[in-house]
Amino acid sequence: MQKGRASIEFDEPPAILSSASIAGKKEGEGPLGSCIDVVELDDMFGTDSWEQAESAMQKQAADLALEKAGIRKKDVRYLFAGDLLGQLIATSFGAVDLEIPMFGLYGACSTMGEALCLGAMTVHAGYADRVVSLASSHFATAEKQFRFPLGYGNQRPYSATWTVTGCGAVVIGRADHNASGCPRITGATPGQIVDLGAKDSMNMGAAMAPAAVHTIRQNFEDFGVDESYYDRIITGDLGEVGKKILLDMMKQSGHDLENVYMDCGIEIYDSDRQDTHAGGSGCGCSAVTLCAHILPRLRSGEWNRVLFIPTGALLSTVSFNEGQSIPGIAHGVVIQRG
Amino acid sequence: MQKGRASIEFDEPPAILSSASIAGKKEGEGPLGSCIDVVELDDMFGTDSWEQAESAMQKQAADLALEKAGIRKKDVRYLFAGDLLGQLIATSFGAVDLEIPMFGLYGACSTMGEALCLGAMTVHAGYADRVVSLASSHFATAEKQFRFPLGYGNQRPYSATWTVTGCGAVVIGRADHNASGCPRITGATPGQIVDLGAKDSMNMGAAMAPAAVHTIRQNFEDFGVDESYYDRIITGDLGEVGKKILLDMMKQSGHDLENVYMDCGIEIYDSDRQDTHAGGSGCGCSAVTLCAHILPRLRSGEWNRVLFIPTGALLSTVSFNEGQSIPGIAHGVVIQRG
Repeated sequence: MQKGRASIEFDEPPAILSSASIAGKKEGEGPLGSCIDVVELDDMFGTDSWEQAESAMQKQAADLALEKAGIRKKDVRYLFAGDLLGQLIATSFGAVDLEIPMFGLYGACSTMGEALCLGAMTVHAGYADRVVSLASSHFATAEKQFRFPLGYGNQRPYSATWTVTGCGAVVIGRADHNASGCPRITGATPGQIVDLGAKDSMNMGAAMAPAAVHTIRQNFEDFGVDESYYDRIITGDLGEVGKKILLDMMKQSGHDLENVYMDCGIEIYDSDRQDTHAGGSGCGCSAVTLCAHILPRLRSGEWNRVLFIPTGALLSTVSFNEGQSIPGIAHGVVIQRG
Repeated sequence: MQKGRASIEFDEPPAILSSASIAGKKEGEGPLGSCIDVVELDDMFGTDSWEQAESAMQKQAADLALEKAGIRKKDVRYLFAGDLLGQLIATSFGAVDLEIPMFGLYGACSTMGEALCLGAMTVHAGYADRVVSLASSHFATAEKQFRFPLGYGNQRPYSATWTVTGCGAVVIGRADHNASGCPRITGATPGQIVDLGAKDSMNMGAAMAPAAVHTIRQNFEDFGVDESYYDRIITGDLGEVGKKILLDMMKQSGHDLENVYMDCGIEIYDSDRQDTHAGGSGCGCSAVTLCAHILPRLRSGEWNRVLFIPTGALLSTVSFNEGQSIPGIAHGVVIQRG
């Protein structure tokens, strides 16, 4: 129910019944590689275009999450899904075969947070017994959409991030007897757009950090907690540059996050070895890290409670070329061990 | 609560506390012109770019809806919003000043339906006392995004539609004493993606009609009703071509909708006089028609109950140029007089 100014507390917390992660070769070679369910060596995923590849990845992740939960697609009432592409085409073509009523979401790289919030809200309210929440990105579709043709071989500054080829999908369901041991979504802090005027699209960490700070502070205030309440506070894809800004800004407001802070973009690659500069990004970055790295630790009991905050940089090539700033958004989700 | 396979019935139906519509000159000259709250003669809305114009329109519509409801932006807990542009940039820049936690939505021209479904679900569950749902489109941003530069003066086939420059915004709130006389959202039938293989981007009515048919039939089945239950069944922007297909398909499944059917895309322009061919389209088409035409009739008691089904064609220039089909989606919302 309503908690503070912007948050929701789930008194009967919905469970994450299963999760599945699919990713590309580079992600498979990264630190989380051995924990990703399927590492596909063909970046085209057997299709004819990058976009179809991303759709195929979504479908595969959803199917695997359903299989792990032991349910069929007709047992899922709603789908909450999104990607980075204009008009969400990876999702439109990825979700069509699921034949599940769908809510298309766009929150840039924060989409998995948005999908978890709405999925948990829907299940908790009794509108559905089970929903699927997923988000994806693909390095090649994102480069094509936002930057340069791959063959151009452009150079990137160290503040730039590398778009993750990957999809994470979870089945969220009522916390009944089937859900024993499953992580629970106990709270949500949907974020607002924050625009401090950052304009460098090669430094999205700086553009998103203030939004993440806003959401974390809102979460602390609404739930009456601080950093000691969480085993980990995990942002989506701030990368090395955004991480520094976030830690500085939080320190200025009296919170030292040094010992609990983690960023999916930093975890998913070994940036020195893999030449990914500031880290990973894209909707798939936090979605894959959630499924491959975070949820397993909540299942094993290594962590008891995390604040998961996928972060999004709200820009398009049009807004960038017109000289607009890059607003950020970040959606917070509290996940506890089952 | 859950109703049938895909719908939701709201036992304490949330109220549409206020609504506001802003549109451009052409819409102002159309049949609904005198009912639109603000008709702006400057297509740039006082800004420097089409995209900023669309953002300005969103902000103006949200502000006016709040003003009509007699509330301030801090009284609104969540915003459900979207537009047609890549990465939702009209919304990102339109919503930033509202400082309200936001869920960014993409359902092509069905976005207002998605925003109403999620807004009503959120209020009904008690997650918020008041939310704002809105959607917009702008002729010039859409042409730039999807078709040709305006100066090119390309010719369009008669099956093509004209993107509405407009934004509709509603405040949805709990049905308490402040809501007497306000229309209520009594049910929702979120739609699934339907792809029958249509590929002509100049005939989006044909691409969307099967999705609308699917949602209407699902609504009938889930609520155990038929066309006689509604004063009007109103699709978003099928236009003249899509209308014929929808009526035919519904007839084939035993439902004669001739006397109750209406399409926002046909209502919003006088296509003979205004040269808009098959009718209006865009997220703004159904959103403006809802606020300027449908809700007033539910307030006055002229209609008792409507099924409102904004329709979306899920394509991008990338998917079109790669030869992909155009999947459709349609979200149904049951709205009754207060």
